[in-house]
Amino acid sequence: MTAHTAYMTFRTPQRREFVRITDDVQGAVEESGVQEGMVLVSAMHITAGVWVNDDEPGIQADALEWLDKLAPPSWSEPAGDVARELLPEGGDYRHHRGGEDNGDAHLKNLLVHHQVVLPITAGRLDLGPWQAVFYCEFDGGRDKRLVIKVLGE
Amino acid sequence: MTAHTAYMTFRTPQRREFVRITDDVQGAVEESGVQEGMVLVSAMHITAGVWVNDDEPGIQADALEWLDKLAPPSWSEPAGDVARELLPEGGDYRHHRGGEDNGDAHLKNLLVHHQVVLPITAGRLDLGPWQAVFYCEFDGGRDKRLVIKVLGE
Amino acid sequence: MTAHTAYMTFRTPQRREFVRITDDVQGAVEESGVQEGMVLVSAMHITAGVWVNDDEPGIQADALEWLDKLAPPSWSEPAGDVARELLPEGGDYRHHRGGEDNGDAHLKNLLVHHQVVLPITAGRLDLGPWQAVFYCEFDGGRDKRLVIKVLGE
Repeated sequence: MTAHTAYMTFRTPQRREFVRITDDVQGAVEESGVQEGMVLVSAMHITAGVWVNDDEPGIQADALEWLDKLAPPSWSEPAGDVARELLPEGGDYRHHRGGEDNGDAHLKNLLVHHQVVLPITAGRLDLGPWQAVFYCEFDGGRDKRLVIKVLGE
Repeated sequence: MTAHTAYMTFRTPQRREFVRITDDVQGAVEESGVQEGMVLVSAMHITAGVWVNDDEPGIQADALEWLDKLAPPSWSEPAGDVARELLPEGGDYRHHRGGEDNGDAHLKNLLVHHQVVLPITAGRLDLGPWQAVFYCEFDGGRDKRLVIKVLGE
Repeated sequence: MTAHTAYMTFRTPQRREFVRITDDVQGAVEESGVQEGMVLVSAMHITAGVWVNDDEPGIQADALEWLDKLAPPSWSEPAGDVARELLPEGGDYRHHRGGEDNGDAHLKNLLVHHQVVLPITAGRLDLGPWQAVFYCEFDGGRDKRLVIKVLGE
């Protein structure tokens, strides 16, 4: 059995950003030499997610617009009545009492989920034709880490 | 260490459908001979999910009604004011510019998540009494694949 | 390769509760002797989730208030118009025909997800500085189980 660990660091210029990392994950699999197994790709922060989706800019813009309604930022005007009502009672997140303003990023992270596990077959990520892996930053402009753990043989 | 891979193909008659696959996953575990380990069950498309839930038709109908409000289709009349407001600005998904109409399926997939990892103990899926595994189709009527990867010994 | 299985049982006094279990999961990793691998932490019920988040009470209160709007209980007054509209047609979940009242817990569980996979590096959970593991009870006051499966070497 082989285990291999790799880390990635992100500091996105924008507050919110989708960064395609399929090739980085495939690179970690190749470094490990694993031919058959699984790879865990997991954000090490609670304001960033990892998802598998089509690499199509329209989907990303749709998803971000929608996430801003479902998990509304309190640092901008609510995107309509639903967003306004989904904000906490009083209009701001309790989490912000400590000086942060990223409460919405925690909730977006909960929806998107912070990790995926990918199958490895014959040394390759065993993905469908439109599946790409993305790091989803919801509170960027600061250093964030991600861990890749390969397990197999 | 043993790794074993199986694939399933679906072509559901209906656009949206929940297909119980617990026995198929258990079958792949038995083929592998693995007694202790994990099995990853992952849709290979981005418009279908995998979830673990009670095999109770009421839950499935509740969940689908609810998902249609939270991640509204643009190919049917919105299910109320919340759904109407959760549609993109202008009423249609940017993703549809390419000719698709499955933008809602991408968002439903994000909520449901496209994969689960199940524990294997003594050669059996180590599930709770009400846990069944479902393939959740949100854009059916076409061929879709799912990968099952067993890892253990 | 080593596989190790541990179970936890919960019977929370309150209907909804977040229970920190990071140390329990680390304890299971130590029992296993695994230095490099993965650990699956998975609720064995469909009305409880597992998430990785900051151990900050404000986030937990924010998340619960928000989940009650997005996946509204039918055993209490809806928390506003959005919650009212996200309830099923007719006001109650179909799932409740069997005598249960936990339909909202099934939907909350779907949003939070019932499991996480954590990396193990040098015998420790390889978590970021603010990542803690929580069992999220949405239908407490009864015995519930959780499985921890460690895989590695």
